[in-house]
Amino acid sequence: MRNVVIGGVAAGMSAASQAKRRMPNAEVIVLERGDHVSYGACGMPYNIEDPQRDILDLVVITPAEFRHTRGIDVRTRHEVLSIRAAQREIEVRDHVAGHNYLQGYDRLVIATGAEAVRPPIPGIDLPGVFLLRDLADGDAIKRFIDETGPQRAVIIGAGYIGMEMADVLNRRGLAVSVLERAQQVLPGFEPVIAGIVLDELHRHDVKVETGVAVLGVERTGQGLLVRTDRGETAADLILVSAGIRPNVALARSAGARLGEHGAIAVDTRQGTSLADIYAAGDCAEAFHRVLSKPAYVPLGTTANKQGRVAGANAAGGDEHFAGIVGTAGFRVFDLEVARTGVGAAEISSHGLDAISVVSRHASRGHHFPGSGRITTVVFAERDSGRLLGAQMVGADTVAKRVDIFATALHARMSVADVESLDLSYAPPFAPVYDPVLIAARVARKALSGHH
Amino acid sequence: MRNVVIGGVAAGMSAASQAKRRMPNAEVIVLERGDHVSYGACGMPYNIEDPQRDILDLVVITPAEFRHTRGIDVRTRHEVLSIRAAQREIEVRDHVAGHNYLQGYDRLVIATGAEAVRPPIPGIDLPGVFLLRDLADGDAIKRFIDETGPQRAVIIGAGYIGMEMADVLNRRGLAVSVLERAQQVLPGFEPVIAGIVLDELHRHDVKVETGVAVLGVERTGQGLLVRTDRGETAADLILVSAGIRPNVALARSAGARLGEHGAIAVDTRQGTSLADIYAAGDCAEAFHRVLSKPAYVPLGTTANKQGRVAGANAAGGDEHFAGIVGTAGFRVFDLEVARTGVGAAEISSHGLDAISVVSRHASRGHHFPGSGRITTVVFAERDSGRLLGAQMVGADTVAKRVDIFATALHARMSVADVESLDLSYAPPFAPVYDPVLIAARVARKALSGHH
Repeated sequence: MRNVVIGGVAAGMSAASQAKRRMPNAEVIVLERGDHVSYGACGMPYNIEDPQRDILDLVVITPAEFRHTRGIDVRTRHEVLSIRAAQREIEVRDHVAGHNYLQGYDRLVIATGAEAVRPPIPGIDLPGVFLLRDLADGDAIKRFIDETGPQRAVIIGAGYIGMEMADVLNRRGLAVSVLERAQQVLPGFEPVIAGIVLDELHRHDVKVETGVAVLGVERTGQGLLVRTDRGETAADLILVSAGIRPNVALARSAGARLGEHGAIAVDTRQGTSLADIYAAGDCAEAFHRVLSKPAYVPLGTTANKQGRVAGANAAGGDEHFAGIVGTAGFRVFDLEVARTGVGAAEISSHGLDAISVVSRHASRGHHFPGSGRITTVVFAERDSGRLLGAQMVGADTVAKRVDIFATALHARMSVADVESLDLSYAPPFAPVYDPVLIAARVARKALSGHH
Repeated sequence: MRNVVIGGVAAGMSAASQAKRRMPNAEVIVLERGDHVSYGACGMPYNIEDPQRDILDLVVITPAEFRHTRGIDVRTRHEVLSIRAAQREIEVRDHVAGHNYLQGYDRLVIATGAEAVRPPIPGIDLPGVFLLRDLADGDAIKRFIDETGPQRAVIIGAGYIGMEMADVLNRRGLAVSVLERAQQVLPGFEPVIAGIVLDELHRHDVKVETGVAVLGVERTGQGLLVRTDRGETAADLILVSAGIRPNVALARSAGARLGEHGAIAVDTRQGTSLADIYAAGDCAEAFHRVLSKPAYVPLGTTANKQGRVAGANAAGGDEHFAGIVGTAGFRVFDLEVARTGVGAAEISSHGLDAISVVSRHASRGHHFPGSGRITTVVFAERDSGRLLGAQMVGADTVAKRVDIFATALHARMSVADVESLDLSYAPPFAPVYDPVLIAARVARKALSGHH
């Protein structure tokens, strides 16, 4: 039995490790286009933040370690050019040796990930303009900061990565400006949440322009210049964080069905429409438990889990991925921001009849030091009272509170169910009614007001 | 309509407020034996910790505020002597005016709370020996510290309050010794959790003796002396925290049925066995969702929720208390400690066939500053794989992670379900596999090893 995995980051290495563990005598080959495998890409901003850290400390396990301690044949700088599903073989370009070869497989896992969207802006390829997607990007940004000492950063795009990097570059001493095409930062969040994040950015002297279109980047005698429909901003370093899209060219050429979001369609076993070919991670869709249909929410957690399922099944197992509920979070300066379930956009596009309510509450007990205010938005289905989603922001434990909502979503709880949860209380970490309970209560009351 | 509430702390004031809100024209009378109502008893240790804080800042709403802004007739220093259920009246001692009177009611809520267990130890009534249950206790301890400047504290009993107060008295500069009759601190927790807490106590120079019986307290020329079966310990301040028991004398005399744990038996509407008499809070049982039977787990969160239900129903509503899953937590020095569901003792006494597994994992991402180790114990039913309980300890977000388990218990999830949860991840607050997911995986694997 020979299992081949295309892609060596989160999903790919999870798949390879799981396949080998399930079937120790099987041959497991990982083909990775880049130089590194098994790195924590989500940790890159925090690595860039610390000048003392080596970018390579993000690598959890090296190719040599995979080979020698796990018996997995990891081949870096090996690019897969095509999949010949009927022949059960793939065409591989070995960039080290400089030749191509055909690699046969019994089971194949596609874990080609996603790539950063590169908007068609003139000048986007100039030196000093960066994306942040793979380890090479992180390495390039970090070296650029260390070697050229940039003073001014412009971040194009105010999503998660844009927010994290505004924080990180500010901590590195750069003057940071953020440009966002939408009318608010964090377009996936409710305006009340985005407003609190905007205040936090301003509090740290980050300049923010929303509703602005970037027209181009130019090099001047004083560095770089970002031209927009409203004016221009000088920069020494520009980070483009305009979202990501799944790498599906290989899978599509091979005939694999894509889903409506453009990622590879998979069943709960991570099987694609092609026999003995699995897909996992940022190149694949995931079943969204709240929407009861596939969605594209590419995140490291999902990649790891899907990878394990794909690897187990490639090795003859019968594992199923339970699906996602759309949980994600990040830090920006002193705030944690997180969401789970669906938000206004998904509610609208799926024609759900829902209410949303906002509540604010202290994070800790009455008078307890370190207590901060947590703002919560809850979405609930109008007729059933079912919890549909939650978003939270605050200076204290927020992400793990959102996980309480995420767990409730898995169980398809109503907001009344959430209100009745028996949650922990002691002044150092919660008020007697946790903000989660308060938010659910506000939603339940708003719903009963509609009947 | 006249609603009378006996007891003015968490459950009582929740009941009174809810009854008044439901039926603004009804008369609502609260009879409280002590001087204060509506205070956060759980906040007392943290108030005592801070010499600058007034003990009365624990009072959320004063009797005058209840009267004037909510229209609730709060009568402090009014002690109820008996309930004449057949006549729908109660006998009240007004300690202010110094006379007794009969008070009629249409609906009655018993919220008499619990009292600290006072072990029959010679000398327990000496000056300098304290319990910590109501605001008067907290006030007395705080004044004693301020006025006499004690150097040495002995805490008898190593439960939650004992642990919190060891921390607090240490921060106030006292040398602290803890004496516990059981073989470990925190008898309700697994030994691995208790061991980590013991290390934390030792790290802060708190002396701990377990498996020790206190024989008596004496006054000497140098202060107090605690004599045990192993020796003696000098003290200036002694705190007895030997658990609590429900105040049920009034209810029992009136003929209300008590449950097997000695607290007042209630239905899901908080109704007692007596017509138009409800009970809520630390004097009452609560339905335990994991055990599917009543239990006695007196906590402030439950008191507040049961009080609301009792008050709503006393005012003609039809509310139901959803029950508890046994969630509780506290801080001791730099550790958060929390549990939910059942532990080894309940599993044994209820004849459940269960496994328990221990796992240890980082609280944050790879290399992220501030990451600490979280130790988790998970209990799962052997045949069904159902989650039965979890206990966690660590220096980072623990209690709100336990709430994820608590939510899973509400939904009767299996450990495999928990393993599949879509939880938030970013290096500042979680590793890619949250400790909750790791713990559930370890449990699921241990279970599958038994089949």
